[in-house]
Amino acid sequence: MNKFFNDPNNFVPEMCEGLVMANPDTLKYVPEYNMIYRSDMPSNDKVAIVQGSGSGHEPAHIMAVGKGMLDAACPGNVFAAPPVDFCYECIKRMNGPKGVLYIVNNYQGDKMAWQMAEEMALAEGINVKGIMVDDDVSVKDSTHTIGRRGVAGNFFVIKAVGAASEQGADLDALVKLGNKVNSLVRTMGVALTSCTPPAKGSPIFQISDGEMEMGVGIHGEPGRRRDKMKAADEIIEELFNAVADDLPFQSGDRVALMVNGLGGTPISELYILYRKAAEMAKARGLTIIKNYVNEYCTSLEMAGASLTLLKLDDELEALLNAPAEIPIRVF
Amino acid sequence: MNKFFNDPNNFVPEMCEGLVMANPDTLKYVPEYNMIYRSDMPSNDKVAIVQGSGSGHEPAHIMAVGKGMLDAACPGNVFAAPPVDFCYECIKRMNGPKGVLYIVNNYQGDKMAWQMAEEMALAEGINVKGIMVDDDVSVKDSTHTIGRRGVAGNFFVIKAVGAASEQGADLDALVKLGNKVNSLVRTMGVALTSCTPPAKGSPIFQISDGEMEMGVGIHGEPGRRRDKMKAADEIIEELFNAVADDLPFQSGDRVALMVNGLGGTPISELYILYRKAAEMAKARGLTIIKNYVNEYCTSLEMAGASLTLLKLDDELEALLNAPAEIPIRVF
Repeated sequence: MNKFFNDPNNFVPEMCEGLVMANPDTLKYVPEYNMIYRSDMPSNDKVAIVQGSGSGHEPAHIMAVGKGMLDAACPGNVFAAPPVDFCYECIKRMNGPKGVLYIVNNYQGDKMAWQMAEEMALAEGINVKGIMVDDDVSVKDSTHTIGRRGVAGNFFVIKAVGAASEQGADLDALVKLGNKVNSLVRTMGVALTSCTPPAKGSPIFQISDGEMEMGVGIHGEPGRRRDKMKAADEIIEELFNAVADDLPFQSGDRVALMVNGLGGTPISELYILYRKAAEMAKARGLTIIKNYVNEYCTSLEMAGASLTLLKLDDELEALLNAPAEIPIRVF
Repeated sequence: MNKFFNDPNNFVPEMCEGLVMANPDTLKYVPEYNMIYRSDMPSNDKVAIVQGSGSGHEPAHIMAVGKGMLDAACPGNVFAAPPVDFCYECIKRMNGPKGVLYIVNNYQGDKMAWQMAEEMALAEGINVKGIMVDDDVSVKDSTHTIGRRGVAGNFFVIKAVGAASEQGADLDALVKLGNKVNSLVRTMGVALTSCTPPAKGSPIFQISDGEMEMGVGIHGEPGRRRDKMKAADEIIEELFNAVADDLPFQSGDRVALMVNGLGGTPISELYILYRKAAEMAKARGLTIIKNYVNEYCTSLEMAGASLTLLKLDDELEALLNAPAEIPIRVF
């Protein structure tokens, strides 16, 4: 296992410590709940936006905490849902007069934890509501999921509600907005390698050199099929068509297009994928208003990528263009 | 070879095409010379800053082209120096009344190409000068290098001269500034896996599970020794001490600290490394003014990281804080 860590049980806490040490002015940390939050929250002026899923998907979600994005994140261990008390404490500590919105990707463990925490918080009179993300078109049910999985499209939900909450939107308006984004965003991914959680010490699934898992989940869940490795353009054709046909996206649509690396794929390859994806968008009559080529939602060191399309209107375009300040930067 | 590409001979051109398609307003592309340049250059108002090395180190350097950073980059093939005519054309096309500064990392092939291009340009009356970067403290000579290698510290040289050129500094002042940054920056890296250039189709060196190459070069050149894999904190201790003892950095110094991923290491692990590096800086009495945790100078999909320290003064601190606009972003 050629990875950087110390005690595997400290993988998540030490990552959180490093993140807060690197961002001492903007982030704070509550070790008991793996909770990373904006140092200027809670606030009287805005609804708090929170999320917590498994770790191992970084930058999702602890590195998406910042002005205009999440106000707090409270991840569980690697690929494990956060315990209920993490979610409950996160809601409670971020609560202000305008309430709390939680975002949950559609996995049974995550949903159960957040829904129980919501009930506990509601019983205390906290104004809290949730939205669910299920953008993965690959498969309907999977190891951890009833229905579709929530994957990289989650970032667009965060961006939209994060921006709107800065502009003063109330909780009900944010729920409506988040559900709208989720209804307009579609994703599918492919894995070229597996990945190894530090505490497990062995790969989460087996895949040979020259193979790929088409439609993989971000915890290595099976996709549509195991196939032989193909040329980049062929892979993107399949991902793009699956995603675009699903909504469906239609000629004349304005879109945001994301090519997301799964953790072990270098950015050079992501731009080779973007090239073909942009060609396909053009051929379909879609206008790319904004593009995103980077790592957003990963699976540890897995080589692979996902493609996300979001259908835009004036409201969503303005929200994507609103400022956001999160820890990740290259100068 | 589980990588995204089409014809291996088109790896670099298709990456460049994707990059320009993703940044149509700010970047332009000259396919004959793998040349990516700012669409608002050449300029009458500033010295042009250019660099070209091998590809496979992205974001270095084509994704470091933008206002306040490089004005153009003209990389060779993967891990291959750019041909002389790439460098010559790049200098010629970027030239304006204030001249051209080229930056070259200390590898024999890169240096030869740029020095020949410089002679050709000088013969045509172009005002061009160069600076050399050799920040790697690991080994004195290597497969491709006489003297020390140039690695991730290169980004600080680009940032400083890029910012100063926007502020109107002339060519001689930029040469002096670039040499100053190079004299104050030190780096060392470690590889946990090898990597595979698409056209080669096999790893550039062999390394077993449970081993690491301490002091590796960014083309897989041997470092100080092959060792057994160690805990993250032990690895950082060795990198930090090697880097800090070299200048040496002394108690009371202000520094910029970079933890750079080599391409296949997820950002979760980079923050675990940053945690220990920040602790060690504090223990030595160094004050971290700015930190950089991300991928800057990579080796394709190699798992590994490097640590860079730059000694700051008021001038350099202001230059690091100046605005820069390059393609890479996470919202």
